[in-house]
Amino acid sequence: MSKKRQLKLGALLHGVGGNPAMWRHPDSQPDASVNFELYKKWVRKAEAGKFDLIFIADGLYINEKSIPHFLNRFEPITILSALAAVSTHIGLVGTLSTSYSEPFTVARQFGSLDAISGGRAGWNVVTSPLEGSALNYGKSHPEHDLRYKIAEEYLDVTKGLWDSWEDDAFVRDKESGVFFDPGKLHTLNHQGEFFSVRGPLNIARSRQGQPVIFQAGSSEVGKNYAAKVADAIFTGQENLEDAVRFYKEVKERAVSHGRSKDDVLIFPGIGPIIGSTEEEAERKYQEVANLVTIETALDYLGRFFEHHDFSQYPLDEPFPDLGDLGKNSFQSGTDKIKEEAKEKNLTLRQVALQAATPKGHFIGTPEKVADLIQEYFEAGAVDGFMLSAAVPSGLEDFVDHVVPVLQQRGIFRTEYESDTLRGNLGLPVPANRYAKQPETV
Amino acid sequence: MSKKRQLKLGALLHGVGGNPAMWRHPDSQPDASVNFELYKKWVRKAEAGKFDLIFIADGLYINEKSIPHFLNRFEPITILSALAAVSTHIGLVGTLSTSYSEPFTVARQFGSLDAISGGRAGWNVVTSPLEGSALNYGKSHPEHDLRYKIAEEYLDVTKGLWDSWEDDAFVRDKESGVFFDPGKLHTLNHQGEFFSVRGPLNIARSRQGQPVIFQAGSSEVGKNYAAKVADAIFTGQENLEDAVRFYKEVKERAVSHGRSKDDVLIFPGIGPIIGSTEEEAERKYQEVANLVTIETALDYLGRFFEHHDFSQYPLDEPFPDLGDLGKNSFQSGTDKIKEEAKEKNLTLRQVALQAATPKGHFIGTPEKVADLIQEYFEAGAVDGFMLSAAVPSGLEDFVDHVVPVLQQRGIFRTEYESDTLRGNLGLPVPANRYAKQPETV
Repeated sequence: MSKKRQLKLGALLHGVGGNPAMWRHPDSQPDASVNFELYKKWVRKAEAGKFDLIFIADGLYINEKSIPHFLNRFEPITILSALAAVSTHIGLVGTLSTSYSEPFTVARQFGSLDAISGGRAGWNVVTSPLEGSALNYGKSHPEHDLRYKIAEEYLDVTKGLWDSWEDDAFVRDKESGVFFDPGKLHTLNHQGEFFSVRGPLNIARSRQGQPVIFQAGSSEVGKNYAAKVADAIFTGQENLEDAVRFYKEVKERAVSHGRSKDDVLIFPGIGPIIGSTEEEAERKYQEVANLVTIETALDYLGRFFEHHDFSQYPLDEPFPDLGDLGKNSFQSGTDKIKEEAKEKNLTLRQVALQAATPKGHFIGTPEKVADLIQEYFEAGAVDGFMLSAAVPSGLEDFVDHVVPVLQQRGIFRTEYESDTLRGNLGLPVPANRYAKQPETV
Repeated sequence: MSKKRQLKLGALLHGVGGNPAMWRHPDSQPDASVNFELYKKWVRKAEAGKFDLIFIADGLYINEKSIPHFLNRFEPITILSALAAVSTHIGLVGTLSTSYSEPFTVARQFGSLDAISGGRAGWNVVTSPLEGSALNYGKSHPEHDLRYKIAEEYLDVTKGLWDSWEDDAFVRDKESGVFFDPGKLHTLNHQGEFFSVRGPLNIARSRQGQPVIFQAGSSEVGKNYAAKVADAIFTGQENLEDAVRFYKEVKERAVSHGRSKDDVLIFPGIGPIIGSTEEEAERKYQEVANLVTIETALDYLGRFFEHHDFSQYPLDEPFPDLGDLGKNSFQSGTDKIKEEAKEKNLTLRQVALQAATPKGHFIGTPEKVADLIQEYFEAGAVDGFMLSAAVPSGLEDFVDHVVPVLQQRGIFRTEYESDTLRGNLGLPVPANRYAKQPETV
């Protein structure tokens, strides 16, 4: 009997929220982004709901107009490591930029997180979109496509360092005094266009071989990079048709790079809002949307466009022509905002409010939301979803009310298949590049 | 009634051990350096023993001659963060080099660890001694004194970033929609000789204000740096006379930099071995010393001298003249080895074996070891000690048998005074450099 294909689920833990005003919600803990007790509670809730992973996003630049969560939040490596100690099965995935870090350090930190968690680490490889980040590192900000070229070599180096030790390198024979087999320790000696890194790394592979590689770019270059090197993609597809197209395209590109289509999993982000009735769910959405002032929404929109000041334009006239602005930061996101504004003839006010509190499709009763999830899943639009909390109780509501429906329908696990992240995602353990024989795990 | 001055204690958690052969001990878990369950057990034991802190050392370079613990071990930021989640009062201190990292990232990671742990983080600021580290970062290795110049500016930047947010910056008033007071957010705008870092940092200060700064250098430049900027010094003084001299000198230097002598605490490292009799303790030491082969000892010695190959010299003739070798790596350590060899007319074999399994003074019954500790403490030679396990049960033995004696004598706490590291160490909370009024905590 072949097992039914299973949906994958991730929970984006986002402190006081990914929108600029959710912290004002009556149920919100306004210090959530630096409240470790709350993060512990969330990871345990997600694990009780058999989620594949939790996800910590990141950013390297703030100014006084940044949204509350960005201003003061836990750094991904530290919070993921702390959460590793209070969980047993769930994957621990975090964003870390290749633009302002060193591959040796990043390989070590994710390798160590992978060791501490027993094979549950994942790295969302991003390039830094904001020029302000460069100023925190005394560097110049590379342009969009160059950032991806750097990222590609960076990831090569990191994966090479992760293979420094073959899985059976450590003999640890007290009697003979042989601690390891020197033939199974490998020095990378990488000399490339952007990096020169000798190795070996001082941490061995975990039970899942290497951390799972996520990628979140959706520009052309980003998509191609993801299809080539990522195990999973965190994307933002707004409707079924776009999601199906994106899914098909990325899987085809993966195959054209000599990979299997199952080697790269696609997770669109959604922010479900659950109510016992449609009306209650809609009311919950309105409650959050009404917390956002137009000034806050304009600031929020500005962040995507290199911190452009939108308060200079009339609010109720068509969205202004911005030329190339945004191309060198969040390219695919800013392209989409511009196109949609033009297509639907939206005013600046409409665009700003929609950006600040986007109204997704996944709003309604548990059954309705489960229906939509199943529809996307069975239409070949997704391998899973990355959930963020669109209301403060978003994760709890989903775990308590939607997960049981998905489980009843047989498309989501009732028990973890594995205690590694690759194991739960159904991804193969990558063979060590230096190993003589293919490994079995 | 004034409270008796209290001893401080730290536990160096060092996996399979700081010497090249302790992993071969019958009681040793040979995978200890990557065994999270064991680290959890240790931190809980140290916390049960009311230790002030645990300490994670680090290194950025290995080769096939490195000692077992260095080859494959947890990275400090990750293991400290994980241990934060399974402890409540003990300080979490780790080494991180200023030579191959970025102040913005390091300020964030220690700031985040400090937030996660509720004010228990400490950073041991080091400069990388080994040239091999440079090759893992595609950089050239700065010479000894320049490394300290860089480190000094680096720490200035980090401390500045940590003060980005005043302690009362976060208003979080849901009604008015004011999340923070922009007048209490500060942009560093640092432009220095080695670093250009704008800020602000995206993590606020913790309950202890800033992480505790440790320093471990004992060269002239290192000592001066420590006296100027460190809250605590981890040093290696071998006898009472040297320890008293070092203590006095550093405290005087601190005062000459306008600080109080109580602002910098001095922790020599010791490796106590406890037995129910003197003979049992001595036997325990011999058991470890006998595990080291001369080949291993020569390799170990070589590491201090830029991985010099000592196997080329006759073993039983006087220690060879090495000229300046070692000056640009572990300067104070290599100077000391050379001087002692000359003074005592030691052979290479003697120097190598002493380096690999140094026989400290702190060997004997619990009462004898407590006597020694008390003697050093009351002689004004130390503020506390940093313990490493010289036998696999070193930490357990000390907590179970020596701590109660120190407590009975009234020189060590029976309950934590605080749940922050500064609180337990008796160090003041540093005022935010931008705050208008001195803060009280």
